[in-house]
Amino acid sequence: MSSVVTISFYQLRAFIARGLEQVGIPASDAQTVSTLMAQADMQGSDGHGVIRLPQYIKRIKAGGINTRPKMRVVQERAGTAILHGDNGMGHLVVSKAVEIAIEKARKNGVAWVGTRYSNHAGPASLYASMPVQHDMLSLYFAVGNANHMPPWGGMDMLLSTNPIAAGIPTQSEPPIVLDMATTVTAYGKVKAKAKRGEMMPEGWMIDRQGKPLLDPKRSEEGFLLPIGGHKGYGLALLVGMLAGTLGGAAMGKEVIDFNADHKTVTNTGQAIMVIDLKAFGDPAAFKQAADTLIRDLRASARLPGVDRIWLPGEQSQLKRQRYAKEGIPIAKGLVQELDRLAQDIGITPLVEASIETTAW
Amino acid sequence: MSSVVTISFYQLRAFIARGLEQVGIPASDAQTVSTLMAQADMQGSDGHGVIRLPQYIKRIKAGGINTRPKMRVVQERAGTAILHGDNGMGHLVVSKAVEIAIEKARKNGVAWVGTRYSNHAGPASLYASMPVQHDMLSLYFAVGNANHMPPWGGMDMLLSTNPIAAGIPTQSEPPIVLDMATTVTAYGKVKAKAKRGEMMPEGWMIDRQGKPLLDPKRSEEGFLLPIGGHKGYGLALLVGMLAGTLGGAAMGKEVIDFNADHKTVTNTGQAIMVIDLKAFGDPAAFKQAADTLIRDLRASARLPGVDRIWLPGEQSQLKRQRYAKEGIPIAKGLVQELDRLAQDIGITPLVEASIETTAW
Repeated sequence: MSSVVTISFYQLRAFIARGLEQVGIPASDAQTVSTLMAQADMQGSDGHGVIRLPQYIKRIKAGGINTRPKMRVVQERAGTAILHGDNGMGHLVVSKAVEIAIEKARKNGVAWVGTRYSNHAGPASLYASMPVQHDMLSLYFAVGNANHMPPWGGMDMLLSTNPIAAGIPTQSEPPIVLDMATTVTAYGKVKAKAKRGEMMPEGWMIDRQGKPLLDPKRSEEGFLLPIGGHKGYGLALLVGMLAGTLGGAAMGKEVIDFNADHKTVTNTGQAIMVIDLKAFGDPAAFKQAADTLIRDLRASARLPGVDRIWLPGEQSQLKRQRYAKEGIPIAKGLVQELDRLAQDIGITPLVEASIETTAW
Repeated sequence: MSSVVTISFYQLRAFIARGLEQVGIPASDAQTVSTLMAQADMQGSDGHGVIRLPQYIKRIKAGGINTRPKMRVVQERAGTAILHGDNGMGHLVVSKAVEIAIEKARKNGVAWVGTRYSNHAGPASLYASMPVQHDMLSLYFAVGNANHMPPWGGMDMLLSTNPIAAGIPTQSEPPIVLDMATTVTAYGKVKAKAKRGEMMPEGWMIDRQGKPLLDPKRSEEGFLLPIGGHKGYGLALLVGMLAGTLGGAAMGKEVIDFNADHKTVTNTGQAIMVIDLKAFGDPAAFKQAADTLIRDLRASARLPGVDRIWLPGEQSQLKRQRYAKEGIPIAKGLVQELDRLAQDIGITPLVEASIETTAW
């Protein structure tokens, strides 16, 4: 662990908030976004936490994100809504969409809220988890912010890693929180392999001959593979149509590669479906059944060499507990990058800041 | 094509209806079920069509299916319902659930209807397609009727092939209809390989050492693999909780293997979510966007050796058109089995019957 610096959740959150405020995000919005970004790191979703701050700030400074969005519901029924995000930070837009969905589900039993003119919002699991504390379950869909996958058999990159996520309430067990890209791996993991000088396992990517691509430094020459072959292609398409097309957001050719283009409005789309357990009977009965199922799965006989059977979301839960005690590990290389960012925009750097322990 | 007999849709449907009526299903219910079963064969879902008739009839005769169910809604909100199927034929229960969901979505924008005490209902795609003609899109989830998969890393078979399906309206293109098991392959395909004396490709099954299992005759010694490893395990669990646990139907240990046990009530669960496109704007705009996306995907440059890029549901659509003209091919072995069934229960066999061309 010598190549990491350990930072408290509050330290990390305060640093992110300083950065966002410095480039014009109002304080209360910076609080919301920084909390979600620090929560990403806190649960081990480190590809979606503070590592994204330099990119977000670059985009804000280039005018690619609206720091003072006027979000508004543009279509509405008893159980549905489209939230127009006015090109604000995705974290703000999606949090608001989830809030609306929870309120609607309370009355109708089920609700579906889509976003348009949203932006990258970090890990899907954060939003899928929000309804759980209200005894509600959720499905969450998002259009990824760069196309890295062709249709099955094709070579034109028209699809992204379009994730699907779900949150399911439990009684005494940790909630079930599924969060998965519809590709075998995320593009971030390819880049991480390249950085470490490692080869990729077969099955992650193919080249333009359809042959396995193993060298991550050649990733530009190939495509990500969907899970289960044509099935994952179908899922990525479905998720993209639910999160993008249905809500009037970008999908397919319209998707902006936000790694390459910091200025063009992305019109990112997400969608959340929320179900109130009360509409299906006593929530306690559902949650007890979920606990029983979890315990049955965990107690299964194991294949040789397998130490433990995991439930979706359980490893993130353990990381949250551990990092709350020990602090969040941040790679030294990233800390240096964040130091340069701090200097550039004129804020107190991450590690020099005093530890804040007051919860907002 | 010498080992197949070609049967018209109407011939096939009438035969199935004769069989069901003969064992006590009322005529109007037999019409509904036989239409759906013949539609399964008509779209090439031949593992879910007339091939299931002997098994259904065996179960009906053993008292494992209620031929006179009193279906009733046992939980209801504006956007949700649980339909108690009273152990009737699954086709009847799920058709009714979809009808209820369509009505509710018309008012609320979105609806979710779950079933309990339902039964095996054939291909998920049939039900996911029903809302499409009303300019509605759907997600469909079902608990499979036999557990063939352990949790990831485990050996106790607590999960089924739990399928996910979706129907998405289009303008001039065929609707997008996705229908996929969350396992790499269906158990029926393993049995088919065994029948033909072929080996399975690596990735379909593993044995109790975690090693690839290639001989389908040894399938009892191993497990089906989920798509995308732990991701497909998470999906199978999610689908099972949505279709089973949420509606108060069987999941995990409670699932009855309906291939081995013809008598015990299965308490099968399915769930359908329906969204009315009108709640999200002009349905024509959505359908045109879907058409554009489909055409972009289809027009993608192709990998070497790939003749055509398919959209989910397109191959079934082509089969429907072809079989409507040429008739539905039924394997001779299956025709012989159906002949024996006809003799057993005392109905006119499939091939001797006159072709009925009157649509109900």
